[in-house]
Amino acid sequence: MIGALDRLVAVTQPGMERVNRMILDRASSHVELVPEIARYLIEAGGKRLRPMLTIASALLCGAPNGEEVVYAASVEFMHNATLLHDDVVDESDMRRGRLAARMVWGNQASVLVGDFLLGQAFMMMVEARNLDALAVISKAATIIAEGEVFQLARARDLNTTEADYDAVIRAKTATLFEAATEVGAIAGGADEPGRAALRDYGRELGYAFQLVDDVLDYRGEANRLGKNVGDDLREGKMTLPVILALQSATEAERELLAQSLGNSEAGPEQLAAVLALFNRTDTLGKTVERAREHARRAIAALKVLPKSDMRELLAEIAEFTVSRAY
Amino acid sequence: MIGALDRLVAVTQPGMERVNRMILDRASSHVELVPEIARYLIEAGGKRLRPMLTIASALLCGAPNGEEVVYAASVEFMHNATLLHDDVVDESDMRRGRLAARMVWGNQASVLVGDFLLGQAFMMMVEARNLDALAVISKAATIIAEGEVFQLARARDLNTTEADYDAVIRAKTATLFEAATEVGAIAGGADEPGRAALRDYGRELGYAFQLVDDVLDYRGEANRLGKNVGDDLREGKMTLPVILALQSATEAERELLAQSLGNSEAGPEQLAAVLALFNRTDTLGKTVERAREHARRAIAALKVLPKSDMRELLAEIAEFTVSRAY
Repeated sequence: MIGALDRLVAVTQPGMERVNRMILDRASSHVELVPEIARYLIEAGGKRLRPMLTIASALLCGAPNGEEVVYAASVEFMHNATLLHDDVVDESDMRRGRLAARMVWGNQASVLVGDFLLGQAFMMMVEARNLDALAVISKAATIIAEGEVFQLARARDLNTTEADYDAVIRAKTATLFEAATEVGAIAGGADEPGRAALRDYGRELGYAFQLVDDVLDYRGEANRLGKNVGDDLREGKMTLPVILALQSATEAERELLAQSLGNSEAGPEQLAAVLALFNRTDTLGKTVERAREHARRAIAALKVLPKSDMRELLAEIAEFTVSRAY
Repeated sequence: MIGALDRLVAVTQPGMERVNRMILDRASSHVELVPEIARYLIEAGGKRLRPMLTIASALLCGAPNGEEVVYAASVEFMHNATLLHDDVVDESDMRRGRLAARMVWGNQASVLVGDFLLGQAFMMMVEARNLDALAVISKAATIIAEGEVFQLARARDLNTTEADYDAVIRAKTATLFEAATEVGAIAGGADEPGRAALRDYGRELGYAFQLVDDVLDYRGEANRLGKNVGDDLREGKMTLPVILALQSATEAERELLAQSLGNSEAGPEQLAAVLALFNRTDTLGKTVERAREHARRAIAALKVLPKSDMRELLAEIAEFTVSRAY
C-alpha cells in the first residue's frame, strides 16, 4: 500500500506542477541575490505540504476555479519568508539538511529576501482579485508574526504554561495550515460550512504537525528534520515536552533545564540528561498523545463534507502526521 | 510666512488625527512586546510625511471617500516596518534621535515586529476592500524589499554606477512616496490622468527626498536626521556623493574611500578627509542639484491637475524638500 503522503503528492501533481512553475517565476528578480537565495531555500525542498493542502482542499470542494494554484504558491512563499526570518531569529545553522541561507549569505540578506517573498505572496494574492482569500492570508501573516514575537518573549521562561504554548503553536503553525486549506476551499467553491470544515481541519492538522515536530526535535535521528537534534533546547524554546517535564521535575531536574535552555554550548551529555528526564516523565509520549487528539479533531471536522476519496485521503494525512513521530 | 511643512500639517490635521488613532489602535496586540516596540518607534515621531501626502492627495482630488485614512495608516506601518528591518540590516545604533529599537530589544524582536507591522499594513488595506489600492501597496512592498537587497549587494562596491544608485533610491524610497500619493488619489476619486499625475509627483518627490537625505548624512549636524553623521559611509552605502567623488578621485582619494566605506571604526579624521574630497569635487552640491531637478519634475507633474491651494502647497512641499539640504 502506498503511504498517504505519496498519494497526496500524486493526486495534487497537476496543480503542483503549475504551483512550482509559478514559484520559480515569482522568485525571479533583476537583483540576482533574490532568486539565488529564494531558490536555494525553495529547491532544498521540504515537502511542500501546505501548498499541496491548498490544492487538495480545492479539489475536495469539487469546483476548483484555477486560483488554488496562485493561493498555493502564495502560501508557500509566506512559509519560506517565515523560515528565512526564523533562522535569523533562532540563529539556526541548518535548514532542510543544508546550511541555513543566513550562514551562506548572512542575516541581512535573509531578512530582506524574506521581506521580498512576503511582498510577492501578497502581490500574487492581489492579482487573483479575491478579497475573501486576501483577508485570510493577510490576517494569517499578522498572526504568525505575533506568535513568533510571543515565542521569543517566552524563551527560557520556566513559567511558560501549556496555554502559552498552545497560543504560540496556534499562531506560528496552525494559522498557516488553516489559511492554506481555507483559501483552497474558497478556490474550490465551498459553501460556508465547507469552508469552515476545511479551516478547522487545517488548524487541527497544523497543531498536530507542530506537536510532532517538537517531539522530533528531541527524538529524531540527526537531520531527520534537516536540523540538529536538540536545537529547540539550545534556542531556549519552551515547547510542550519541556513544559510537561517541568510539571513533575525535582529541584535538580528543574535546575538542569534552566541551565540547558538557551545554552548554545549545551553538549551531548547535557542533552542526554534532558532526554533521560523526558523519558522518566514520558513527556514525549504525552506530547504525541496531544498531537493524536488534534489529528482526531482534524478528521472529525471533515465529516460535514460529502464522503469522497479526497476526504478519506486528507483524513489519512492527519493520521500520517502523527505517525511521523515514530 | 508659515513654512510649507507647517501648512501641510495644518491642512491634513483632521485626517491625520484619525490616522494617528488608527496607528495606535492597530499597533496593539495581546503580545506586549509588539505595541511596546511599535509605539517606541512610532511615537519617536518622524514627520509622518508619507501619510500626510496620502491625505493631501485625496483632498486635492476633491472627493475623498474616507479610505485615505486607512491607506495613510497602512503606508506609515509599511514605512515603520522597513525602518525596523533596515536598522537590523545596517546595524544602526540610532533612529529618530533615540536608540534604535534593536539596541533596546534586540535584532530578533525588531525583525518580527517589523513583520507584524507589514502584516497589519496589508490587513488594513484588505479591510478597505479596494483592489486597485491593494495592488499599489503590495507591489510597493515587493519593490522596496528588492531595492534594499540591491543596495546590500552593492555595498562597498566602487564600481556602482549612477544608474545603480538611481535604481536603489527609486525602489527603496521613491516607490513608497509614489504609493502614498497614488492611493491618496484613488481615495480622492481621481480619474486616470489625475492618478498618474499624483503618482509621478510622489515618485519625483521621493527621489528628491532621498537625494537630500544622502547629502544630510554627510552635511547635517549630528542628529539632524536623528542618526549619526557619516553613518552611510560606515555602512558602506554607495550613495551619489560617493559615486560622483569617485569619478574624479585620484588614486589616493580612491584608496581613502575604499578604506572608509563599510569601516565601522572610521573616526572623525577619516570622515573629515572624505568631506574634504567631497568639497573639492563639489559632490554634495551636485547631489542637491540632482534633487532640485527631481523637485522640478514633481511640480511639473501637478500641472495637469486643476489649480488649487492644495496643488500649490504640494508644489511648495517639493521645494521645501530640497531646501532641507541647507
